[in-house]
Amino acid sequence: MEPEVYPMNGGDDSYSYTKNSNYQREASNVASEMINEAIAKNFDVKGLTSTSNTLRLADLGCSVGPNTFIAMQNVLQAMEKKYHSQGLSTKMPEFQVFFSDHASNDFNTLFSSLPPERQYFAAGVPGSFYGRLFPKSSLHFVYSSCALEWLSKVPEDLLDRNSRAYNKGRIHYASASEEVFNAYTSQFEKDMGIFLDARAKETVVRGMMVLIIPGLEDDIHYSQLLPGLTLDILGSCLVDMVNAGLLDQAEVDSFNLPMYFPSPKEMARLVDRNGCFSIERMEMMRPRSKTDVPLDPQTLVMHLRAGQEGVYTKHFGREIVDKMFERAFRKSAEFSPLLDLSSTMKSQLFLVLKRK
Amino acid sequence: MEPEVYPMNGGDDSYSYTKNSNYQREASNVASEMINEAIAKNFDVKGLTSTSNTLRLADLGCSVGPNTFIAMQNVLQAMEKKYHSQGLSTKMPEFQVFFSDHASNDFNTLFSSLPPERQYFAAGVPGSFYGRLFPKSSLHFVYSSCALEWLSKVPEDLLDRNSRAYNKGRIHYASASEEVFNAYTSQFEKDMGIFLDARAKETVVRGMMVLIIPGLEDDIHYSQLLPGLTLDILGSCLVDMVNAGLLDQAEVDSFNLPMYFPSPKEMARLVDRNGCFSIERMEMMRPRSKTDVPLDPQTLVMHLRAGQEGVYTKHFGREIVDKMFERAFRKSAEFSPLLDLSSTMKSQLFLVLKRK
Repeated sequence: MEPEVYPMNGGDDSYSYTKNSNYQREASNVASEMINEAIAKNFDVKGLTSTSNTLRLADLGCSVGPNTFIAMQNVLQAMEKKYHSQGLSTKMPEFQVFFSDHASNDFNTLFSSLPPERQYFAAGVPGSFYGRLFPKSSLHFVYSSCALEWLSKVPEDLLDRNSRAYNKGRIHYASASEEVFNAYTSQFEKDMGIFLDARAKETVVRGMMVLIIPGLEDDIHYSQLLPGLTLDILGSCLVDMVNAGLLDQAEVDSFNLPMYFPSPKEMARLVDRNGCFSIERMEMMRPRSKTDVPLDPQTLVMHLRAGQEGVYTKHFGREIVDKMFERAFRKSAEFSPLLDLSSTMKSQLFLVLKRK
Repeated sequence: MEPEVYPMNGGDDSYSYTKNSNYQREASNVASEMINEAIAKNFDVKGLTSTSNTLRLADLGCSVGPNTFIAMQNVLQAMEKKYHSQGLSTKMPEFQVFFSDHASNDFNTLFSSLPPERQYFAAGVPGSFYGRLFPKSSLHFVYSSCALEWLSKVPEDLLDRNSRAYNKGRIHYASASEEVFNAYTSQFEKDMGIFLDARAKETVVRGMMVLIIPGLEDDIHYSQLLPGLTLDILGSCLVDMVNAGLLDQAEVDSFNLPMYFPSPKEMARLVDRNGCFSIERMEMMRPRSKTDVPLDPQTLVMHLRAGQEGVYTKHFGREIVDKMFERAFRKSAEFSPLLDLSSTMKSQLFLVLKRK
């Protein structure tokens, strides 16, 4: 079955992902230093270029830019630096960068905003990363940031009225029962297994993979999950609308966000089960540096809207979703404590893998 | 300087290229038999797959489909057949197909209409083929159909009022002076030189290139050029509009279609000058088979519109272009003799090159 698809908002208007993805960009900024270190330490330029005069990079879940361009530029510079530092300046390969996302992603916007001064050959690859996207052993560096938290679909049990995982009155597992949480976990394990299998085939031996996924620190209960708390507020807006007679209860009961936020322990277990990658580095990090301008609640809601609107609209229709985000805007006071938390909590999982 | 860009009409409405490209498809159908023969005879499956377990194909100037999907599918099948016939069924490589066109091409439509049952990894590559698009020695098969007749720009002399190549009252070289024709020829030679240089770098040794370009038989004068005669009728619609006071003469004088239709001799000379490719086959062919339903004038005008509207609109604006095509529609009687000619004339240049 085709995975379900909810692209980021395309184009470049006021609700677009292009204009509302600073938060994701800041997460990349914090990560970029760590990526530089990982490339300097682990990227095997000698070994990798002995078999190919081209290095192929992929950003999986690239959306429409500009974050993907900034991230790929950073990776390229770190690689070039490594070539120079190893005395291999004359052996510098050519770079090909594959920007990949669902076929419904706005590739027209992506392509028309490619940096004109780029030092690489650009290509777009449409399709779900829960499946093969590239030929065997064709990628040297795989990157994915703020994308793998999207499951391929809503866990089926959540929609079964007779299941103990039926998620009445909630849109996510954050404040839900253990059964609901377990259904999400099991879907994530299945999806991540497929993801790692596909990448293991596509990545050359000694190739590198950097994953950034909003996640949960080990040994913290999922009810304390920061993005989950945010989703609870959005869910409460929907429940308010049910109470105001604007929306059927059943509509809310049958909706669940297909997003999951894994812990390091969980990821380590799945990487180990796959068996093709070694973990070179894994840690939870703060998504924003101390020098970043503090997020205000309105900006947070705009970001949520640009990144997640599609999945709500598909279920509830545009009118309800407009009203939901208006209500979320008015509830900004409730977001404030979460924003304070977000400046101190390590809510981003950073993972460097190497293909064995 | 960025080459000028006039994409085919995107989307899938009544003026779209998707709905108005049967003619181009028929040209591919006639060519497909010849491509099958060329692959059977010249495509070196043993040599090419000894160095890579992936075969990389590119369609340059792919537009939005469906023609590109049909053409690439045909190429793949011919390659698979060759593997089987050589007893190499177990060595079948994976295929990656790059669909390339200008960044302003409607890649969203292209990607959303990719055949779901395709047996290849698909990628889109935005950019002009008058320049590098791919890493060194990365392509095994390059295809381009009905695209290389578009020049990178209008030859500069045509816009210089003081030049003898200033093309007053005409929009093309078909019925123009020798100087105008020479200016077009010289731009084509420059562009084709750049095209061949770039492809020589990108294509692996023993790789293959198939080019289909609307062209002119050797030793036929350019005033007899079939697509040129069609353009003359469109030009005459504009001149009628000048006479009716709907359009400034200067607007017509300053407009020239950046399209050129080469002869086999001319192409042979340019391939030879480049020096990196051997000509395996070159001939003029009929673009339509005898069993194809005869083209009617209205359909022809719709096809011209889907393929060329962009270049007119950029210069004249939408309103004038709507009127021009309405007038062309009414002049359909004038197209009829051309359509009769087109069923007998060999107006398509078919070229198979091999990377030395």
